[in-house]
Amino acid sequence: MKAADIVVIGGSAAGIPAAITARRHYPEKSILLVRKEKQVLIPCGIPYIFGTVGAPENNLIPDDTLQNNNIELIVDEATELKPIDKKVILASGESVKYDKLVLATGSSPLLPLIPGIDKKNIYLIKKDVQYLHNLLNVLKDVSDLVILGCGFIGVEFADECKKNREINVTIVEMLDQCLQIAFGEEACRCCQEIEDYLEKRGINIITGVRLEDVLGDDKVSAIKLSSGQEIKADALIVGIGVRPDVDLAQKAGLAVTKGGIVVDTTMRTSDPNIFACGDCTTKFSFFTGQPSGLRLASIATTEARIAGANLYEISRKNPGVVGVFCTAIGNLTVAMAGMSEKGAKQCGFDVVTGEAEAADRHPEAMPGMSKMWVRLVFNKVNGELVGGAVRGGPSAGELVNTISACIQNRMRANDIAVFQIGTHPAVTASPIAYQLVNAAEIALKKMKS
Amino acid sequence: MKAADIVVIGGSAAGIPAAITARRHYPEKSILLVRKEKQVLIPCGIPYIFGTVGAPENNLIPDDTLQNNNIELIVDEATELKPIDKKVILASGESVKYDKLVLATGSSPLLPLIPGIDKKNIYLIKKDVQYLHNLLNVLKDVSDLVILGCGFIGVEFADECKKNREINVTIVEMLDQCLQIAFGEEACRCCQEIEDYLEKRGINIITGVRLEDVLGDDKVSAIKLSSGQEIKADALIVGIGVRPDVDLAQKAGLAVTKGGIVVDTTMRTSDPNIFACGDCTTKFSFFTGQPSGLRLASIATTEARIAGANLYEISRKNPGVVGVFCTAIGNLTVAMAGMSEKGAKQCGFDVVTGEAEAADRHPEAMPGMSKMWVRLVFNKVNGELVGGAVRGGPSAGELVNTISACIQNRMRANDIAVFQIGTHPAVTASPIAYQLVNAAEIALKKMKS
Repeated sequence: MKAADIVVIGGSAAGIPAAITARRHYPEKSILLVRKEKQVLIPCGIPYIFGTVGAPENNLIPDDTLQNNNIELIVDEATELKPIDKKVILASGESVKYDKLVLATGSSPLLPLIPGIDKKNIYLIKKDVQYLHNLLNVLKDVSDLVILGCGFIGVEFADECKKNREINVTIVEMLDQCLQIAFGEEACRCCQEIEDYLEKRGINIITGVRLEDVLGDDKVSAIKLSSGQEIKADALIVGIGVRPDVDLAQKAGLAVTKGGIVVDTTMRTSDPNIFACGDCTTKFSFFTGQPSGLRLASIATTEARIAGANLYEISRKNPGVVGVFCTAIGNLTVAMAGMSEKGAKQCGFDVVTGEAEAADRHPEAMPGMSKMWVRLVFNKVNGELVGGAVRGGPSAGELVNTISACIQNRMRANDIAVFQIGTHPAVTASPIAYQLVNAAEIALKKMKS
Repeated sequence: MKAADIVVIGGSAAGIPAAITARRHYPEKSILLVRKEKQVLIPCGIPYIFGTVGAPENNLIPDDTLQNNNIELIVDEATELKPIDKKVILASGESVKYDKLVLATGSSPLLPLIPGIDKKNIYLIKKDVQYLHNLLNVLKDVSDLVILGCGFIGVEFADECKKNREINVTIVEMLDQCLQIAFGEEACRCCQEIEDYLEKRGINIITGVRLEDVLGDDKVSAIKLSSGQEIKADALIVGIGVRPDVDLAQKAGLAVTKGGIVVDTTMRTSDPNIFACGDCTTKFSFFTGQPSGLRLASIATTEARIAGANLYEISRKNPGVVGVFCTAIGNLTVAMAGMSEKGAKQCGFDVVTGEAEAADRHPEAMPGMSKMWVRLVFNKVNGELVGGAVRGGPSAGELVNTISACIQNRMRANDIAVFQIGTHPAVTASPIAYQLVNAAEIALKKMKS
């Protein structure tokens, strides 16, 4: 029987950093990572396989990180967990003993329960190299593609599938606008621009409808919407969300809810020797402590760094999910941290907002200039920043992390207004126009009046 | 006689935000800004006039910000300040009464005291449209240009003057490496890469020497170095630093030191009705409280936002200069916040560092990828972040602001290791490889061992 001090089940955005963090904090321990995939895909990079990067092989997380950190790897599926014996049974029949266990079993894409959903040429976004190869092959013969769901996956898949391919693409979304859940109604200008861009590229977007039926014999030939409309479809890609993979934990008697494997703020499950992190666990909001449904690779890695460090000695605490995310379509990058205005109000916060837009170069004649727009949401009662949205060029992806730093440190508008920034003509806004600071000033002025 | 509740002297990176902040905080007050320049240049954009943007007119701060904020503008020079009468005398003979005064008189470039420095074709970097037009014209007939000083101005001027121009450019620097004062010895890899880039472009860099003599009749024809070497020069551009413009304050009897007009942490001078901000004031370090010689437009704007808000009611305090800066040469952006390792040690800190490098896209096959390198410096005693350097693509300019947020909030390595980030394939590193977090983890590991 195999044995290691620390065993990690899962080898993606949670499993890898959990193992590496454990190595950094417990250099003397033996660490073993068990995963079922031969090759691990970069989860957020999957849409780009279908256009920009061209193949699953160009979107892999290399195994050398594990080797360099002296982490043993077993490619096998964990089928049973025996907490009392402190061991894991693998599909091969092999058993693995552990002293501390980390569950990083991830999530699986949801399939809508509608007639005909079991037909051929219906694809989920599975983190599986061979499965995505099959989808790439199928797309060669597809002239009409329907994508169900207009969240990040829907938007990015539509844009990428349209690249280097003669294909009609239609996105079907039950809400009123693409990316609405992610960005809230306040950032609808961003969502609208993304829709406009996709439509300019010839992508058909149908919102405010549900998928009711999948037509065709053994293979999908068309879909029927709640509006009665039928749309020709040689293939259907479904990106409507995920559910946590909790089977292993649940069968072993660990506490599990609909939200995932139950963990405390140290990332420990109901068994003191078993930790869990990533898409498979319950989450709660940084702002309210209420359960959070957000599932992001970046959240998974943060949780993994908490779990991996706490295995033998608690030194880190999960403050709850802030929620920081980003997408880039064409030349536009949109990003968000924390709560939207609407979301904050729904949670009972009295909020005040401030907006600022300026060129992300100075003077504007500098090459590569985009307009960068920032919107900040503050708690009116104590002045603390609770959310921020950014829209602009590529550096929006890092600017939103500055906003996240301000949120996590519970900075108030008055603090952010005198935030010490670095600027340069070729890469940022001018210090006078710097959006983050000016948005805070504008919110502050509203708070006073 | 003119009169306004609030009078601001100076219309650049300190004066403008001081006036705008006063407007935001005191909507009922009359505000008047006096400046001597007809047109105001973006200070950090000046090097780009000589290449990328082509003319001073493409590098101006528009006056509409003042108009939109109901700030009256007088273009005239303040020649005398009478604090007891609360009035300012202008060069035109006009007087202006104030209730509260903000001095934002800036700084002037230093000229080295060596023989021949008064010859023709020797240029300082003055924030003056006509003066820079003259320099642009002179450069048309120059075949050998020497730039004295290899700080930001030297590096950026050398690169820009070489664009669209048949010209030999030589930089002369008394230290061992370009940008050494800014980045410290630890970031010498960045400095070395910038030197390599400039040399590849045919720019000659001579370090470790002083300028001893300027040769020629009425016009410079060559310069002589402390090494004995003579270098042909049709023009000399001097970028060796600035001194605060304190004349107005000094003659009025306000407290002044070599470091500038003395201000307290509220940005108030020795006269309770007179505030000062920007290059003209004394500064102190965020980390030690010791005097700081840093002069940056971004520091000026932050101080202006403190001064403007505090005029009638103290609500902001200057915590001291963190020092956040950035330059971009070719495809390389280098940025720094806070103290370098060497600087921290010189101040008596026991420090530990962590470094991480990763692609700023994920997978690496995503377009526009650069390697992004981050180095963090922590106080070993309390774990607090005291400095960080970034080297990579354009988004380094915003990433350094995230580091600045961590410094200003006195975040510790253990906090940064679980920092909640947003990531996206097209615009950032992967969450697993995110440099800021990994550099903190590596420093933490060193702290423990």
